[in-house]
Amino acid sequence: MPESSNGKEEALIVFTPSGKRGSFPIGTKVLDAARHLGVDIDSVCGGRGICGRCQVQPSLGDFPKFNVKSHADHISEFGAKELRYKEKRGMKDGRRLSCSAVIEGDLVIDVPADSQVHKQVVRKRAEVRNIEIDPVVRLHYVEVEEPDMHHPSGDLERVKTALKSQWDIDVTRADLPVLQTLQKALRDGEWKITAAVRYDGELIYVWPGFQGNAYGLAVDIGSTTMSVHLTDLQTGEVVSSVGAMNPQIRFGEDLMSRVSYVMMNPGGEQEMTAAVQETLNFLAGQAATEAGVDLTEILELVLVGNPIMHHLALGINPVELGWAPFALATNSAVELWADEINVRVNPGARAYFLPCVAGHVGADAAAVTLAEGPQYREEITLVVDVGTNAEIVLGNKDRLLACSSPTGPALEGAQISSGQRAANGAIERVRIDPETLEPRFKVIGCDLWSDDDGFELASAKVGVTGICGSGIIEVMAEMFLAGIMSADGIIDGSMAEKSDRIVPEGRTFSYIVRRGEPEIRVTQADVRAIQLAKGALYAGAQLLVDKLGKPVERVVLAGAFGSHIDPKYAMVLGLVPDCDLDKVVSVGNAAGTGARIALLNRKARGEVERLVADIEKIETAVEAKFQDHFVGAMAFPHKTAPYPNLQKVVALPARKTAQDGDDSDGTAGGGRRRRRRRG
Amino acid sequence: MPESSNGKEEALIVFTPSGKRGSFPIGTKVLDAARHLGVDIDSVCGGRGICGRCQVQPSLGDFPKFNVKSHADHISEFGAKELRYKEKRGMKDGRRLSCSAVIEGDLVIDVPADSQVHKQVVRKRAEVRNIEIDPVVRLHYVEVEEPDMHHPSGDLERVKTALKSQWDIDVTRADLPVLQTLQKALRDGEWKITAAVRYDGELIYVWPGFQGNAYGLAVDIGSTTMSVHLTDLQTGEVVSSVGAMNPQIRFGEDLMSRVSYVMMNPGGEQEMTAAVQETLNFLAGQAATEAGVDLTEILELVLVGNPIMHHLALGINPVELGWAPFALATNSAVELWADEINVRVNPGARAYFLPCVAGHVGADAAAVTLAEGPQYREEITLVVDVGTNAEIVLGNKDRLLACSSPTGPALEGAQISSGQRAANGAIERVRIDPETLEPRFKVIGCDLWSDDDGFELASAKVGVTGICGSGIIEVMAEMFLAGIMSADGIIDGSMAEKSDRIVPEGRTFSYIVRRGEPEIRVTQADVRAIQLAKGALYAGAQLLVDKLGKPVERVVLAGAFGSHIDPKYAMVLGLVPDCDLDKVVSVGNAAGTGARIALLNRKARGEVERLVADIEKIETAVEAKFQDHFVGAMAFPHKTAPYPNLQKVVALPARKTAQDGDDSDGTAGGGRRRRRRRG
Repeated sequence: MPESSNGKEEALIVFTPSGKRGSFPIGTKVLDAARHLGVDIDSVCGGRGICGRCQVQPSLGDFPKFNVKSHADHISEFGAKELRYKEKRGMKDGRRLSCSAVIEGDLVIDVPADSQVHKQVVRKRAEVRNIEIDPVVRLHYVEVEEPDMHHPSGDLERVKTALKSQWDIDVTRADLPVLQTLQKALRDGEWKITAAVRYDGELIYVWPGFQGNAYGLAVDIGSTTMSVHLTDLQTGEVVSSVGAMNPQIRFGEDLMSRVSYVMMNPGGEQEMTAAVQETLNFLAGQAATEAGVDLTEILELVLVGNPIMHHLALGINPVELGWAPFALATNSAVELWADEINVRVNPGARAYFLPCVAGHVGADAAAVTLAEGPQYREEITLVVDVGTNAEIVLGNKDRLLACSSPTGPALEGAQISSGQRAANGAIERVRIDPETLEPRFKVIGCDLWSDDDGFELASAKVGVTGICGSGIIEVMAEMFLAGIMSADGIIDGSMAEKSDRIVPEGRTFSYIVRRGEPEIRVTQADVRAIQLAKGALYAGAQLLVDKLGKPVERVVLAGAFGSHIDPKYAMVLGLVPDCDLDKVVSVGNAAGTGARIALLNRKARGEVERLVADIEKIETAVEAKFQDHFVGAMAFPHKTAPYPNLQKVVALPARKTAQDGDDSDGTAGGGRRRRRRRG
Repeated sequence: MPESSNGKEEALIVFTPSGKRGSFPIGTKVLDAARHLGVDIDSVCGGRGICGRCQVQPSLGDFPKFNVKSHADHISEFGAKELRYKEKRGMKDGRRLSCSAVIEGDLVIDVPADSQVHKQVVRKRAEVRNIEIDPVVRLHYVEVEEPDMHHPSGDLERVKTALKSQWDIDVTRADLPVLQTLQKALRDGEWKITAAVRYDGELIYVWPGFQGNAYGLAVDIGSTTMSVHLTDLQTGEVVSSVGAMNPQIRFGEDLMSRVSYVMMNPGGEQEMTAAVQETLNFLAGQAATEAGVDLTEILELVLVGNPIMHHLALGINPVELGWAPFALATNSAVELWADEINVRVNPGARAYFLPCVAGHVGADAAAVTLAEGPQYREEITLVVDVGTNAEIVLGNKDRLLACSSPTGPALEGAQISSGQRAANGAIERVRIDPETLEPRFKVIGCDLWSDDDGFELASAKVGVTGICGSGIIEVMAEMFLAGIMSADGIIDGSMAEKSDRIVPEGRTFSYIVRRGEPEIRVTQADVRAIQLAKGALYAGAQLLVDKLGKPVERVVLAGAFGSHIDPKYAMVLGLVPDCDLDKVVSVGNAAGTGARIALLNRKARGEVERLVADIEKIETAVEAKFQDHFVGAMAFPHKTAPYPNLQKVVALPARKTAQDGDDSDGTAGGGRRRRRRRG
């Protein structure tokens, strides 16, 4: 071992995975050596052997790469504090508390990922960025000087001094609840407290003694469902997720009927605000209970939602979003006390609403964009978040455009004769035999197909109750591929000769997917509803393609709808422009993920704010071409646009001409004629 | 008239009182010329002829001093806007709206004080500084762009753009109530609103159309009474003042009994907080009603009070102030939403609490110091604010010290046998004939002395109900000067031979000030109570004199007590160290004045915060010399300290020695001996 200039023996220390190295006097604490080298090691207790966040793992053996022999006797034996921590809280074998263990010789010391301050949350999909943990609020344990009559000073001022000297934090202000609880906390904790401090120096809460847990809530307020993800602000882990129906549904199933409710019932927005805020409290409580977390440990909320949900959650009357020019109250991010929106978690907790993009493109779209990051890619990506409105973003690192499209709720299974939400018992997959026209299907909650042996028994506990959005898409695509339905969306009554599943219904025909109780069928009206929805969706996307002047190279389907849909069937029906099917991904609740990113990483907030400011907003209502695109997009997959990528995978039926006997004006006529023929 | 470089005729304009001058093209608006020269002219409406704050007065005639001939035809005729304003709101003759009047020739234009942004509030006493009006919040009228579907942006963002372009204001954040009301305000006001913006860019409220009024409340929370002064934030004028008893009195007359109540009734602080906050709301409402002001026009509160009142108003449990080491929760200023202390004025109103100096030296002392400004003077000033505790500040521009002294409530007339608060019917002035020992007195609410003709009739409507603090001081000083009471505070029973107003009472003697119902007398116990109080007061002041090492050159008596007291009598009793009587001033409610300064001038807040940080805090409880000073100060005016300045004005009785028959240990012994003699 080398000797230092002051004659004291020194040891060579190498930290992995950073590779940072240096010589330190024997007797130096591992944490001090790490800090000296700028190695990133976490700590809440400030090196007092309480929090256990600074764990390291000496790697023993010879490391020729580092030119170090790292031996077991090169690190101190377990001391009293460390033993007590291991006994009380548990610690993996081989792990040491770097604030207690002392260097006694050359060592290679590994800093595991969970001991780093700037931990990363690794996301499952390789193409999206990991989340660096850098929350807006952190916990700091401090020892505070007792008051002294000879040098009178306020308790808060001595806490500030302690935070400055022990953590180099400048407290800029303290919330009133802190002032109200500080004196008792200091005395109950025998002048040791844990302080929750925001990045800007705001002291928002104090606990007596040591407090190691800090959580946040990522909240997605959908028109239909609300979900919260209780997230550990220090590890990034989601410790519980709960959801509930949005209670505003009683004021109207879709967004516009809720806005109409407010227009017709002045003050109605307050009922809706109360309903959503109450549910938020309920969900926060449920998530906390499930995870065994105290509500006061929830220090931060991030909320996303479409513009109307955003406004209602904030207590802003949404009527202006119900008519042109669809003016938002604000298109900036909103940060306030959770208390201001009546959410009862930690009294110092803040709530951050991601910015809305435009009158119909909400904070949810901002969150999806944040989560999916089209702005970091070369490829032109089309991001579609289908809710009651479709929110559509298109572009790449050079330019992003956004619009919304009034799809209505049909793609979610609403306003469909046998439609239902995606829940147990809902048909979610359908295949139709092109020869016999017989269907087979799968329901949510049962792993078997309807023609598998034992399906009746296996599906009995969930039943077969209806058909959800993805089921609707699949059955219609299969009907189209099997020739039951024409490219213009007419259920072909002549097919009734081939199969008794095609039956007349008024002046049109329906296709029976399932006989029995309930009978589940696809009616001509159902087809029309889906045509309108998908036409709007396609038209919005195509409008952005026109503006950008570049074709779609990649499609991201977000939202509950997107997570169940098979990209192939979406393409067969022509929901989105043609694209290599390998480049179509379903990403599930990306809005929730975006909320979680903004919860865990404060820089992500600035990022999404800049992003939203830069996105070019297109208002479909003022674009003449939207209507043209819409009309063309009513056909499957499209009246004129080619689908070369789709056709590599699927053989589309040859497009019939009017001379082939197809009724190009659809609905009534065809049915009437056929009925006459039948009668 | 000269010609400008572009050939257009120019005129010479001189603004008074600033003397700023310049040449402007004929046709320039007076306001534009003023702005160009940096002449300070107010405006809320931004030069739209609505607010009338930019009034100027052309001075007509020849001004050889300025080398200008200023003629009536050198300024435009009244235009439509100006006429409408004059008709609707009224305007003094000769006045013009500078935003409407146009320069048509050379002019001397006077800017009256009430048209300046940085107006000064002139205070009555010459020795104190005037208040420059520079409030934390100002009103700005703006015209906002309407939303446009082709360029979608939030309503708030367009308001921000308008405030930037029309007022050069960068809005940093908007309160939630602004977001909740903004859209309606914009549409109701036809895209014209008035915004209340704080100095730091926080947008706190919006009104549709023009709103010209902004008020603040200066609040003094005394242990006994609470008072609010509703103040115009634009003119500095106090538009109404109301007061009420502090409702906490039901929990204890003096401060310490209230703290004891909390100690014995956990949670009792919440009752007291609720009581004081409710009263604050009541007083705010009353002040607003009296002045015809809408509660939403109250945009700011400044609060002062002793540490216990400060803590209770904020909802902080004051128990720590009840025992050593008397730790404050904070000794910094506290700024929060008025809503957080449950005061319902404008929802965006903030409340600012001046900082407390130390555990027994409150925000009221800070306010008194701010109002009186000893830190700007050469003379060593002693500032005494007598409440239940005396808060004492001593020093000059070089150094300030502060302490508090436990005087108890005797100096305010409490715990005195015939004592009462200063109210109608209370004896406030007393003179005793040194020969006959007959008293004469005045009561509050009656201008006559008790020996004036017609006193019985004149005083009948208020009655004679008791004796208040200043009456107590005067009667005791007169008793001492007349020889009825010794320097050691013994009422001399031998004087009973001279006057039947000296009567035995138990083992001591009393002096009857008024016979009848109620009989008003000064008992030996009353004298003892005053001795204890004034001894404590003197000792605190003397302790500071010791620390400073310099004698008192000036005395400021603040508080309700101070405002009624005659400095000579305060000195005769030795309440404060000797000082030139011409240098003793009573300043009334200086704490309220300090609050008003902090309300009207935002820089005063930084000033008082620095001041409080710099004041040296002396804790009397740990100073051994305090007890010595206290014992010496029990005598009138003092056992040993000379009162040369006082003796220039008043002949003090020669000090008797023990041999002269005085009983130096006082109370019981003297009485007993005398009774024996009598018996």
